[in-house]
Amino acid sequence: MNKTKENINSITPRSKDYSKWYLDVIDAAELAENSPVRGCMVIKPNGYAIWENIQKVLDNMFKLRGVKNAYFPLFIPKSFFEKEAEHVEGFAKECAIVTHHRLNLNKERKLVPAGLMEEPLVVRPTSETIIYSMYAKWIHSFRDLPMLINQWANVVRWELRPRPFLRTTEFLWQEGHTAHSTKEEADETTLQMLEVYRDFAEDYLAIPVIKGIKSESEKFAGAAYTACIEAMMQDGKALQVATSHMLGQNFAKPFKVKFTDENGNEQYVWQTSWGMSTRIIGALIMTHSDDKGLIIPPKIAPMSVVIIPIWSKDHDKKDVISKANNIATKIIAEIGQVVHIDERDERPGSKFYDWEKKGIPLRIEIGPRDIINNTIVAVRRDTGSKIEVSLTNLVPKIKELLNSIQSDLYKRAFQYREKMTQEVDSYKAIKNILADKGGFVIAYWCGDQKCESKVKKETTATIRCIPFEQKQEKRKCIICGKETSTRVIFAKAY
Amino acid sequence: MNKTKENINSITPRSKDYSKWYLDVIDAAELAENSPVRGCMVIKPNGYAIWENIQKVLDNMFKLRGVKNAYFPLFIPKSFFEKEAEHVEGFAKECAIVTHHRLNLNKERKLVPAGLMEEPLVVRPTSETIIYSMYAKWIHSFRDLPMLINQWANVVRWELRPRPFLRTTEFLWQEGHTAHSTKEEADETTLQMLEVYRDFAEDYLAIPVIKGIKSESEKFAGAAYTACIEAMMQDGKALQVATSHMLGQNFAKPFKVKFTDENGNEQYVWQTSWGMSTRIIGALIMTHSDDKGLIIPPKIAPMSVVIIPIWSKDHDKKDVISKANNIATKIIAEIGQVVHIDERDERPGSKFYDWEKKGIPLRIEIGPRDIINNTIVAVRRDTGSKIEVSLTNLVPKIKELLNSIQSDLYKRAFQYREKMTQEVDSYKAIKNILADKGGFVIAYWCGDQKCESKVKKETTATIRCIPFEQKQEKRKCIICGKETSTRVIFAKAY
Repeated sequence: MNKTKENINSITPRSKDYSKWYLDVIDAAELAENSPVRGCMVIKPNGYAIWENIQKVLDNMFKLRGVKNAYFPLFIPKSFFEKEAEHVEGFAKECAIVTHHRLNLNKERKLVPAGLMEEPLVVRPTSETIIYSMYAKWIHSFRDLPMLINQWANVVRWELRPRPFLRTTEFLWQEGHTAHSTKEEADETTLQMLEVYRDFAEDYLAIPVIKGIKSESEKFAGAAYTACIEAMMQDGKALQVATSHMLGQNFAKPFKVKFTDENGNEQYVWQTSWGMSTRIIGALIMTHSDDKGLIIPPKIAPMSVVIIPIWSKDHDKKDVISKANNIATKIIAEIGQVVHIDERDERPGSKFYDWEKKGIPLRIEIGPRDIINNTIVAVRRDTGSKIEVSLTNLVPKIKELLNSIQSDLYKRAFQYREKMTQEVDSYKAIKNILADKGGFVIAYWCGDQKCESKVKKETTATIRCIPFEQKQEKRKCIICGKETSTRVIFAKAY
Repeated sequence: MNKTKENINSITPRSKDYSKWYLDVIDAAELAENSPVRGCMVIKPNGYAIWENIQKVLDNMFKLRGVKNAYFPLFIPKSFFEKEAEHVEGFAKECAIVTHHRLNLNKERKLVPAGLMEEPLVVRPTSETIIYSMYAKWIHSFRDLPMLINQWANVVRWELRPRPFLRTTEFLWQEGHTAHSTKEEADETTLQMLEVYRDFAEDYLAIPVIKGIKSESEKFAGAAYTACIEAMMQDGKALQVATSHMLGQNFAKPFKVKFTDENGNEQYVWQTSWGMSTRIIGALIMTHSDDKGLIIPPKIAPMSVVIIPIWSKDHDKKDVISKANNIATKIIAEIGQVVHIDERDERPGSKFYDWEKKGIPLRIEIGPRDIINNTIVAVRRDTGSKIEVSLTNLVPKIKELLNSIQSDLYKRAFQYREKMTQEVDSYKAIKNILADKGGFVIAYWCGDQKCESKVKKETTATIRCIPFEQKQEKRKCIICGKETSTRVIFAKAY
């Protein structure tokens, strides 16, 4: 489509309307779009390319740890959910159910899954129950353990207030499911996978995160406990980036996942499950982007360099495009980056704007004068700064610039989080901060759900996590005054 | 699990019961398993690893042709199907419908998709309708064309008689959807994508295929015509490996997918769609495997070489394992193949058997005497032949053996198909062949659906395709005797 002057600056500034800004950035970068089915988005090629990169990196990290991929059914018999009391309670409100299959346009017949009582099928909101019904068949002896399986899949949780990437009725994710012979090994795996997510979020997505444990009321329905990583968005709100659940024997018992140990005794396995979803793309957008549009860290960008050949006279065109090709070939061959040359017959300014809003980390401009000087101009998407680069030094300089962008994005996000994190020692202070500028509020909490609920009710903030990093000091719960040594993070959250 | 002597030879021979053999091979190679939901299989790690390789190769082939991946919703409003008359007719019998979402365990509430009349949602059996409802928004001008988008997804078509990989209620696939400004370009794309599938099937899966066009009664519901590639399984039955549909303007019109051409005139786009599914794994199994179990062609095998270190005395163990590691490292580094060393404390014979039924193309045996002789023994999975290989010549020889296995598998399948293909000039001959040894029967057909139906009714065989390769001779339809120049392939099919 041709852009007109009118809709060029169509991104609402963050300061004016943060929610609108978020939607505008997605729209301008062509990442996703609402579909005709409420709550279900279409992930457009630009958005899906980011997801493909996320999959590639994470999948490798899992496989290096011995995890294998498999695929389990989309449909789960309703009765399976009812086997774990907390689990069914947690997902009861958000499931889609298949009860019919269409025999013809007017008549519908109820489904009768063979081998089961006639019962409705749930479209999976998560797959613990169907997967563990298989584990019960596959696991017999300690020799079958640990079992480490991951699935890349779509899941459905009905959303009343959908937002692209952040909350959609259908979303894409991976869900890892492991079974172990000891509690210790399952505990270890829970934390090991959390560390994989932290590493991925910080190293590839440049999103600083805090590792911790969810409070009882915020944990996964059916888990013994839930470990998580939490990030801060640019409006000071928290976003849960990934979770890793220690399931204990909560599912092993109802699903009879048992093994015979070295001594011939039958035991229930210990299990974990862990997941990251397309929600992470929402976090990526809200951590780095600015009023000009999307910013993608180089390590996860589907395209990290765009070259804009600039010519005013026709006889220059061939030269600058040929030079652009030289440069592209060099960068592709020597740094392995994806490079695009924008040869369209459009004004350079309009091209700059186009790639800026799409978040390409580095822009290279090359014109007739640059050819004479044996230079190019590199423009960083994150800072907008222009750097003249000699062609004799091209490859190391581009490499250095991409590395700087990656680490500077992380630093900027980290500094913002530090600035927006405050420790308080009174309930009044928490309320003031959350009502005012927001952000993370660190405070002591006694562990009582009543105190947690009170904060939630009065401020809408929740306990994001009990960070692993604790001070081991005895202080008072800022809500009820009871003595405690537990510091938690309160924040409003997506 | 420990195998006992009793269940070691648990694969039913093909000659005894071909259907049972197929299920036994899947079971023994741990590729897939029935799930508690009728018709839905679990794809186990060994099976999913093959699918991952298929995805990797095909995805690259698509991207090289400018196709981009995206993701569209699982749910499609029922009314969308009703916009294209043939399409809804074709899929009416096999759709799963979501009508409720569970508010709590006892109460269920009807779904109300916002922005739509209250209507049921279909779990996608294919995505033309939902995708083209988006194309109508995305395509405005000739500059937006061609639009080349692919989706990797799960789809649901209710199956009354499911068989793993071949017919499952839920299956995984890719579906490509393109839009073009001219009929010619859409025709070309239909054939171009069919050629991608042929290339992939023959070069990677070593499955020889025949390219052709489906008869009217066998084409995709809603297509102008359907091009396909057909393969022959070891029981002489046909299996449709992939299809590529020219949709004409059949969907463009009801979904109003229009563009303004160079002259400012509004026109409907011309479209194609094309897909390959997890069904291809069924074809892979049935083309190559034998009574010992699975055979996977090296180019698509998740693991192409397994090394079995052999020792009888404990002091030899360290030496042979260290040598096995040397060899593995060399093959991985120099040929880029996935290699596994089986160090388990089990009898070599039982290990041989284990990897044979899993279909690993090449086995390397190394024992103390081999170390002294500076040799190894390589055993081909396809022929069982044992080749002594000098370690000085290891890498080129392994490469050569893998290449031979790949091409010999193709040749074997090709020769079998040739042997099982007969041309006939009487209806009696067709009936006899199909009742006797089966296979492909080539015959002249007038194009009349009545003649086609008669054969189907009396022999259960269908027209698999009208091959692109034709003789241009005038002959008589073997059913009705009418003059025709069209030769077709009749066969019983999966």
